[in-house]
Amino acid sequence: MQVYLDNNATTKVDEKVFEEMTPFFCEMYGNPNSLHSVGSATHPKIAEAFDYLYEGINADDEDDIIITANATEANNWVVKSVWLDRILDGEKNHIITSEVEHPAITAACNYLEKKGVDITYLTVNEEGVLEADAVADAIREDTALVSVMWANNETGKLFPIKEIGAICKEKGVLFHSDATQAIGKVKVDVQDAGVDMISFSAHKFHGPKGVGGLYIKKGVQLSPYMHGGEQMDGRRAGTLDVASIVGMGKAMQLATNTMALAYEINHVGMLRDKLEKAILKIPDTIVIGDTKNRTPNTTLISIKGVEGEAMLWDLNKNGISASTGSACASEDLEANPVMNAFGSDSELAHTGIRFSLSRFNTEEQIDYAIEKIKEAVERLRSISSSYAYTPKNHVSELEHN
Amino acid sequence: MQVYLDNNATTKVDEKVFEEMTPFFCEMYGNPNSLHSVGSATHPKIAEAFDYLYEGINADDEDDIIITANATEANNWVVKSVWLDRILDGEKNHIITSEVEHPAITAACNYLEKKGVDITYLTVNEEGVLEADAVADAIREDTALVSVMWANNETGKLFPIKEIGAICKEKGVLFHSDATQAIGKVKVDVQDAGVDMISFSAHKFHGPKGVGGLYIKKGVQLSPYMHGGEQMDGRRAGTLDVASIVGMGKAMQLATNTMALAYEINHVGMLRDKLEKAILKIPDTIVIGDTKNRTPNTTLISIKGVEGEAMLWDLNKNGISASTGSACASEDLEANPVMNAFGSDSELAHTGIRFSLSRFNTEEQIDYAIEKIKEAVERLRSISSSYAYTPKNHVSELEHN
Ligand SMILES: Cc1ncc(COP(=O)(O)O)c(C=O)c1O
Ligand SMILES: Cc1ncc(COP(=O)(O)O)c(C=O)c1O
Repeated sequence: MQVYLDNNATTKVDEKVFEEMTPFFCEMYGNPNSLHSVGSATHPKIAEAFDYLYEGINADDEDDIIITANATEANNWVVKSVWLDRILDGEKNHIITSEVEHPAITAACNYLEKKGVDITYLTVNEEGVLEADAVADAIREDTALVSVMWANNETGKLFPIKEIGAICKEKGVLFHSDATQAIGKVKVDVQDAGVDMISFSAHKFHGPKGVGGLYIKKGVQLSPYMHGGEQMDGRRAGTLDVASIVGMGKAMQLATNTMALAYEINHVGMLRDKLEKAILKIPDTIVIGDTKNRTPNTTLISIKGVEGEAMLWDLNKNGISASTGSACASEDLEANPVMNAFGSDSELAHTGIRFSLSRFNTEEQIDYAIEKIKEAVERLRSISSSYAYTPKNHVSELEHN
Repeated sequence: MQVYLDNNATTKVDEKVFEEMTPFFCEMYGNPNSLHSVGSATHPKIAEAFDYLYEGINADDEDDIIITANATEANNWVVKSVWLDRILDGEKNHIITSEVEHPAITAACNYLEKKGVDITYLTVNEEGVLEADAVADAIREDTALVSVMWANNETGKLFPIKEIGAICKEKGVLFHSDATQAIGKVKVDVQDAGVDMISFSAHKFHGPKGVGGLYIKKGVQLSPYMHGGEQMDGRRAGTLDVASIVGMGKAMQLATNTMALAYEINHVGMLRDKLEKAILKIPDTIVIGDTKNRTPNTTLISIKGVEGEAMLWDLNKNGISASTGSACASEDLEANPVMNAFGSDSELAHTGIRFSLSRFNTEEQIDYAIEKIKEAVERLRSISSSYAYTPKNHVSELEHN
């Protein structure tokens, strides 16, 4: 049986999405900016896709949603244009972010630090929680931007975006949130949350890879990152990738409508809980981070005495795909510094394994995964030099949730 | 009949390309950077695609070809990273380019001008020709970059890349060429040409939209434009768009192999010449720019007394897709300032029409197009207030080629 439990890394394109995209490769291949009908034939489906995008995040008609290559571009755009517009050419010199952001924020901020920008990396506590108050305390006169993710890719932890939005609004600071791991998993309502900008990437919600977006609230000034043609009202140049835009729109619709989000919470959430509870019955296992206010699809678990990577390989042999929670696997770019918050306990940092589900997982798959995970833990602990092997299961003291 | 003659704007994805891409949406959807087999299953086809890319432009194994969203990103990357690395953080302050570059270079340079960078926009003569000597003359002590396109998108004119490459090498100046309109039309050999970097976009050679690349010669330093994950050896972050990479590789192979390039010159070039000659039989028509050393697929023609846009609409009604050669059509982002080189003659600037062919055009299509073009000219001139209508064709004094 094949069980894909690595949906925070990337997802399968929904067949319905692919079906919508298909005509735009070999048949309706026109450039939307051309004046002839081969070009304009693409317009209705592009318009429909934008409707789905606006609806999906509850953007106002006057706000902008600009298509990008991915969330990485959207994140780089925000951080670097804020630098160029408001720091290099302005009075500000400070950016606030968290220490558990995706590298597409962190690495961009590290780069700006070398250019002399002051960056505050807010810490999260041992439970992976970021307090809104920490943002309020960090804001200074010269703060140009607050960028805090909506949902963490490792733990699924949701950050207090609405409270941070209110704080930023009150203090007059631009507020961006990387919502890449939130779309399709929880309701993302940009107006309710009070964000100025959010980033997203279609391949995280069953759309194609290589396309994403940046939502920009009306009135927010941000220099383009890609100069060139007048596409996207001059905010992002480059020939429109029609198939991908149409695909992302459809994927957004399928992932964010009321029924889809209810299914995510009830069905996907139920499967995640079932998986998590079953693993926690194995002694010496813990869920990393606070289990309240998480995305319904994610669990990051530490299994004492079992190297995350060894576990991955064992599961992989049985057709199960997961990811390590530690940043040590250089191939695994999903890994992030959340584990560093538990850094003092280096054992924890090497025993993390992340399971991230999707609407395509079935209960049968989860039952199968549970069985294989148990077997793998048994086997790996039996050969572990560091773990005192106790063959009979007992409820762990460490167990929680 | 449908006759698509706007291949410099964008092309139809080759069915063979789409076939290669298809499995990577709903089946082999893994993230290449994941540690499990759903991820690594993508590796062989990605490796094959890179082989095709390297072969297609004759890159050395030790050079880099970095996947980008398109040529716009590649161009912005070069111009802006050179600015940040060598001007803002260095001793240089000057960039040389031409006045007929695509907006993805020009607009980026305009932006840098506002930041205090000195930009020289080399002029082309009335024939659209750029002299290598002009580059030599413009190079200064503080020149950080020369960026000159390989082939012009409006006229198809080829620039003396190899001579410019030699000049830049001798003077120790970084040399980038936007080869977007050259790939698949003429042989692009990066080693023979002596370029440090070239940009390209797959949708110009029957690959998908939304993917392109930047070739970077080994040893050339250039800060990343997209910071984040460690993809592409840390030179360009963002989840790999597997389907598009595989598609671009296949498209490159199909467009650049010896037979394909021979077909482009012989067959596509023959059709272009046939079309051009037939139009030049109509009185008061001229080909804009020097017709030597052009890409085989492109002709930019001025038809006296006929507004380019009116012509477009007339042809469009008959199933023929073309493009205006003037920058006045704001929807048409292909348009570029080449017409400004003929700026004093404002009539010329409004009567340009560009036909750009591809390997999918047939002689039957061209015969049909010729007939419809003649009819359109007849009709439009008959209602033109500026053109003294002479119903009988005669060989124009202006005719050349
Ligand atoms: C929170 C977060 N932000 C940004 C990204 C980057 O997405 P992409 O690689 O599609 O640019 C990811 C996923 O890799 C992510 O999980
Ligand atoms: C010469 C040239 N450079 C760059 C581009 C930009 O390509 P893209 O829109 O795919 O980024 C084009 C086409 O639009 C072009 O003709």
